[in-house]
Amino acid sequence: MRAARFYDQKDIRIEDIDEPVLQPGTGAIDVAWCGICGTDLHEYLEGPIFVPPAGHPHPISGESAPVTLGHEFSGTITALGEGVTDLEVGENVVVEPYIIADDVDTSQGQPYHLSKDMNFIGLGGRGGGLSEKIVVQRRWVHPIGEIPLDEAALIEPLSVGHHAFVRSGAKAGQVAIVGGAGPIGLLTAAVLKAEGLTVYISELSEARKAKARETGVADQVFDPREGDVADKVRELTGGRGADVGFECSSVPVVLDMLLDAVRPAGTIVNVSIWGHKPQVDMPKLVLKEIDLRGTIGYASDHPDTIELVRSGKIDLSKFITGRIGLDELISQGFDQLINNNEHHVKIIVDPRA
Amino acid sequence: MRAARFYDQKDIRIEDIDEPVLQPGTGAIDVAWCGICGTDLHEYLEGPIFVPPAGHPHPISGESAPVTLGHEFSGTITALGEGVTDLEVGENVVVEPYIIADDVDTSQGQPYHLSKDMNFIGLGGRGGGLSEKIVVQRRWVHPIGEIPLDEAALIEPLSVGHHAFVRSGAKAGQVAIVGGAGPIGLLTAAVLKAEGLTVYISELSEARKAKARETGVADQVFDPREGDVADKVRELTGGRGADVGFECSSVPVVLDMLLDAVRPAGTIVNVSIWGHKPQVDMPKLVLKEIDLRGTIGYASDHPDTIELVRSGKIDLSKFITGRIGLDELISQGFDQLINNNEHHVKIIVDPRA
Ligand SMILES: NC(=O)c1ccc[n+]([C@@H]2O[C@H](COP(=O)([O-])OP(=O)(O)OC[C@H]3O[C@@H](n4cnc5c(N)ncnc54)[C@H](O)[C@@H]3O)[C@@H](O)[C@H]2O)c1
Ligand SMILES: NC(=O)c1ccc[n+]([C@@H]2O[C@H](COP(=O)([O-])OP(=O)(O)OC[C@H]3O[C@@H](n4cnc5c(N)ncnc54)[C@H](O)[C@@H]3O)[C@@H](O)[C@H]2O)c1
Ligand SMILES: [Zn+2]
Ligand SMILES: [Zn+2]
Repeated sequence: MRAARFYDQKDIRIEDIDEPVLQPGTGAIDVAWCGICGTDLHEYLEGPIFVPPAGHPHPISGESAPVTLGHEFSGTITALGEGVTDLEVGENVVVEPYIIADDVDTSQGQPYHLSKDMNFIGLGGRGGGLSEKIVVQRRWVHPIGEIPLDEAALIEPLSVGHHAFVRSGAKAGQVAIVGGAGPIGLLTAAVLKAEGLTVYISELSEARKAKARETGVADQVFDPREGDVADKVRELTGGRGADVGFECSSVPVVLDMLLDAVRPAGTIVNVSIWGHKPQVDMPKLVLKEIDLRGTIGYASDHPDTIELVRSGKIDLSKFITGRIGLDELISQGFDQLINNNEHHVKIIVDPRA
Repeated sequence: MRAARFYDQKDIRIEDIDEPVLQPGTGAIDVAWCGICGTDLHEYLEGPIFVPPAGHPHPISGESAPVTLGHEFSGTITALGEGVTDLEVGENVVVEPYIIADDVDTSQGQPYHLSKDMNFIGLGGRGGGLSEKIVVQRRWVHPIGEIPLDEAALIEPLSVGHHAFVRSGAKAGQVAIVGGAGPIGLLTAAVLKAEGLTVYISELSEARKAKARETGVADQVFDPREGDVADKVRELTGGRGADVGFECSSVPVVLDMLLDAVRPAGTIVNVSIWGHKPQVDMPKLVLKEIDLRGTIGYASDHPDTIELVRSGKIDLSKFITGRIGLDELISQGFDQLINNNEHHVKIIVDPRA
């Protein structure tokens, strides 16, 4: 079968490899669509980061480069391994793409994603969505019912937004300010809106401001060059400030803005990944008694996230900005996202095309 | 009556001023003892900070320098204003030294201390504990029962530690690591110990390490020069890390150590006041899903704090390292704390001596 494999920085190859073999406790999936993620771009441009370099096998998967890429994918069950009785052949599913030690408790409510040596399917080994077929442990497979398979490829990044929402403790009726309207900021905003919050977004890029408006995920979109965003948030909240803030840009001034824009005793969830240690306005965090919370990935979020999409509260089709085949992965996928990033939210790949 | 009044940086005068006048809804207090706080030292050396400078009256108190100093005090009720029926003349009390607008809801559980223009009695006006007498609104007066008046002068900083504990959400049986064993670190540790936690302290100063040991507030005291503190915490917790951390030093490497020493999904409460924006290890905060929480002052903490002392769970006498009269305030108080700080926890002042 065909697969996109990461060998090294700037070295991703579309190759023919052996099909994965069904094992007890797993499901075999024909991949339908797989999204390209900022993390994939980072591996390509600056990696290996998550990918275990050749000769340094990952302690859980036992694999190292080359590995198959792709962690945001949907597909259809084609076969079930021994002992798997609660899925059906022909059923459409998404994968929660974790590589986690077998003895970690992954039951509802456990922070299993914070366990030692956690990595991702499609980065740390165990196959990936940028290939025709994959075999996945039952515990990571989530049925999606009638959700279209193209939209379902976006359930993984939407789960990141859902987990950020859960981490915030936000409630319907509250006010949120999201800093940055890239894919993660937009999808986080989509969850917040679907959960009944009033959502403000701050964003610099014209294309992304437009996207935030046309997808309807934001009640208001601010440009920080057109006036102080925190002041605007206060104006719109009777002087009070937002209840929750979401850092989705990894830009220090955005984190500063959020510390200013949330109310006393408010919460900020930091979704972005920082490549350095930024300066943080700790004086403000202390004097306003702000909670600044990290969030990474998801844990027990997929069922609720899927339900938000299945029920129609979130329409993921609006966030698909490109569809390509596997052979175009670099030319129409990675290169587009590198050179023309702000005009895209998600480019999805059909590994059979 | 005699009072210590802040005029300006390095200009504190012991003067004779008019006695305060009893008002409806207030209690008149003869001050017994008043502690000197790091905040008072900051005003003296670098201020005015909290003190409203001459000509710039505070929006709530209407006062500006000179103001009477002292916000950590105990005393005895000598008279009660009209409408105050739930206190008795002769009763011993402490004061929760807030200056807060009259229309702010100060009932249990409200974050009233985060309200606009909050300041402190003894800094922002309304008299202070470094004088013989003070008149205080009923809502800020807390009876202390049989607690000795000298120890009671430490209930204010102990309430800071109690509020930090409440902010952390920590539970009996959990493990805490406190960074810095100055007065605030020690008193925070005392609350954590009394609340049933295992408490580790990291501290550089020999005198303060000794104090942490002899007061019994710490199960273990670490010196960061003698090995990685986070590693030691992990060793002692079966590889897991502490459940909660408390930043009480305002030193960036201590905050870094705490981010390392707490477990995934752990909580850090930042108690220290930062004079600048430090670099924060946000990558670690994100990947470990840490909650970093600010805490300032106290709110509805005094009753529980007083009960910890009244019941004997905390012995505040161990933290009194000096007793002086008002005339010695600078020579034996401020100058001692400035030049010989690490040998002191609390110096308390008898404004009548
Ligand atoms: N926590 C997690 O589990 C998780 C998962 C996936 C991605 N991420 C991280 O989330 C972050 C966002 O991902 P993305 O793919 O959306 O990235 P992105 O770079 O596409 O989006 C960032 C957006 O911030 C905007 N921005 C930059 N400066 C700004 C400013 N001053 N004010 C307002 N907006 C500004 C940019 O224009 C851009 O649209 C990244 O750091 C990524 O690594 C985290
Ligand atoms: N949040 C609040 O409501 C509140 C109230 C009062 C005080 N504070 C703040 O709390 C902080 C502590 O107050 P304090 O009076 O105890 O101050 P302090 O300066 O006496 O104590 C700080 C301690 O940290 C220690 N320290 C310095 N570097 C260290 C290192 N690398 N490792 C370990 N320990 C180290 C010092 O030796 C010192 O003992 C101050 O910033 C103060 O302004 C906050
Ligand atoms: Zn991704
Ligand atoms: Zn104080």
